Amino acid sequence: MNEIYLQMKEVGRKVDKFIVELVDGEGRPEVLYRAAKHIINAGGKRLRPYLVCKTCSLVGGRVDDAIPAAASIEILHTFTMIHDDIMDQDSIRRGVETVHKKWGVPIAIMAGDLLFAEVFKILYVVNNSEVYSPDVRLNILRFLVEATIRICEGQALDMEFEHIEEVKERDYLEMISRKTASLLEASTKVGGLIGGATKDQLNKLGEFGWNAGMAFQIIDDVLGLTADERELGKPVGSDIREGKKTIIIIHALQYASEVERRKILKSLGDKEAPQESISELIEILKSLGSIKYAMDKASEYASKAKNALRIFDESPDREDLLRIVDLIVTRRR
Amino acid sequence: MNEIYLQMKEVGRKVDKFIVELVDGEGRPEVLYRAAKHIINAGGKRLRPYLVCKTCSLVGGRVDDAIPAAASIEILHTFTMIHDDIMDQDSIRRGVETVHKKWGVPIAIMAGDLLFAEVFKILYVVNNSEVYSPDVRLNILRFLVEATIRICEGQALDMEFEHIEEVKERDYLEMISRKTASLLEASTKVGGLIGGATKDQLNKLGEFGWNAGMAFQIIDDVLGLTADERELGKPVGSDIREGKKTIIIIHALQYASEVERRKILKSLGDKEAPQESISELIEILKSLGSIKYAMDKASEYASKAKNALRIFDESPDREDLLRIVDLIVTRRR
Repeated sequence: MNEIYLQMKEVGRKVDKFIVELVDGEGRPEVLYRAAKHIINAGGKRLRPYLVCKTCSLVGGRVDDAIPAAASIEILHTFTMIHDDIMDQDSIRRGVETVHKKWGVPIAIMAGDLLFAEVFKILYVVNNSEVYSPDVRLNILRFLVEATIRICEGQALDMEFEHIEEVKERDYLEMISRKTASLLEASTKVGGLIGGATKDQLNKLGEFGWNAGMAFQIIDDVLGLTADERELGKPVGSDIREGKKTIIIIHALQYASEVERRKILKSLGDKEAPQESISELIEILKSLGSIKYAMDKASEYASKAKNALRIFDESPDREDLLRIVDLIVTRRR
Repeated sequence: MNEIYLQMKEVGRKVDKFIVELVDGEGRPEVLYRAAKHIINAGGKRLRPYLVCKTCSLVGGRVDDAIPAAASIEILHTFTMIHDDIMDQDSIRRGVETVHKKWGVPIAIMAGDLLFAEVFKILYVVNNSEVYSPDVRLNILRFLVEATIRICEGQALDMEFEHIEEVKERDYLEMISRKTASLLEASTKVGGLIGGATKDQLNKLGEFGWNAGMAFQIIDDVLGLTADERELGKPVGSDIREGKKTIIIIHALQYASEVERRKILKSLGDKEAPQESISELIEILKSLGSIKYAMDKASEYASKAKNALRIFDESPDREDLLRIVDLIVTRRR
């Protein structure tokens, strides 16, 4: 597995370099540009850029050609994180203070907006016209815009669910499809596009990315309850305090006794819930098999993601993409 | 003058129809889409769409061909208003409650983000390929992205100035150049691009739009102090309560006596300043000639805007564009 992390790091280095040069603004106003780069500088896995590069390479493209688009997707991801953190009132992200916590909400809104604009800057600053034909550029634009619209819808649904007691699993899946899977789908399709994928290949890459994204978000929800706080880079149980209706909560509410149900609903959405209540709640979720249920669901999506790669010939790139799916399911942070 | 308003209304009707069909999302989540369209539905002059259409027509294009791009610019403008209102904590816009006031900050952030994405949707949904060639699309993209980056920088500077006692006029002009003039410049350039302008024409159209934008913002700052509250659609004096360093304030601080100076600085940025202090302050600004000074400055920019149109042959479109500049300077809201 280690090798994949090394590859991700390598892609990350190139992407970060590209981003730092792109998001420049001659440093003025300084605070805006510092705020915009804060979360990028804080690290992160660079999973999405990695997917862009790997899928590009899988269909015969060059990794280096994919870097600008990979940077674009990482910038898009960063913009959504900055704005999501404001909305969810999160204080910590990737182990550092969130942008709005550090500079206030106005600067955080604007830093996000600025990054959102920079996402599309790539489409006209990149001068590699052989790979980035006008058609390819406009298709990348379409994938990015559609993903962003889905992300906004997903985030709105996620917040809507905080105020609904009984959320159906189907609705949760629809929500994470938009909030998370849509951007992984865009990543794999953009990579394929740059690599010159056929229409069939592009569809399969999209299927791969979408299913990997579904697995990724479900595991994210599991880790929010079970991970080590230091590894996670944010407080454990914050999803519960925010009242997030994850698949784990939805499952548990379905099978809980009346007493358990009351306990769950008591801590859910209680911003001041003490750590003991959170710990007790997590024990209940475990005993009801809700965490196991979520893990199994994630594995199902992971399998579907892998299956989508069957149409491609065996290759090191295909191997790596299959392994990244395993990594998504088994990761600890 | 009335005829220009009628023309703007006509453009507005077409643009609004286009926007309503574009920003659809099959109505889900409903609140997000309602919030996104709230400020568009509240009316407004549609000055920017009008400029897109008129400049397109000036260089020989068809107004109807410019409608999608005009819609795109109005959506961009709306997105910036929604986010600005959050940052400036404004409650009223175009005579209706602001989005964050009505639905809360999270929905307002997301409604803005959604609209920002929709700005670029136009570039791939429009199927008029004769006018919207891939090259034209990518150039529109560039103009829009560059304007957005400038707007973010301008808004950040504007907020930065709230915490600086002495802002130089040069810095104020730089700030409004980014915050406001950049989008009017983009409007006239996008219009020209669609109409098939030559490079020289495009430059002159940009010069026209930029200068008109500078005049527009200075007059906006004047109206914030002198307009009728009902006409303005927002409370008079809110700029003062927010501590905005407009050119009027900058001029006044330069020529005020020590007593006047103290009075100005007392109300400036005082969110609770009573209406009497605001009225007294406005009287001081008038007596110091600061409002007159700003009006003269606006007129200077207006003249430069008009001069930029000299390279175009006389035509009804050119007449209308000259008249719109007069309208910008003489408007009451």
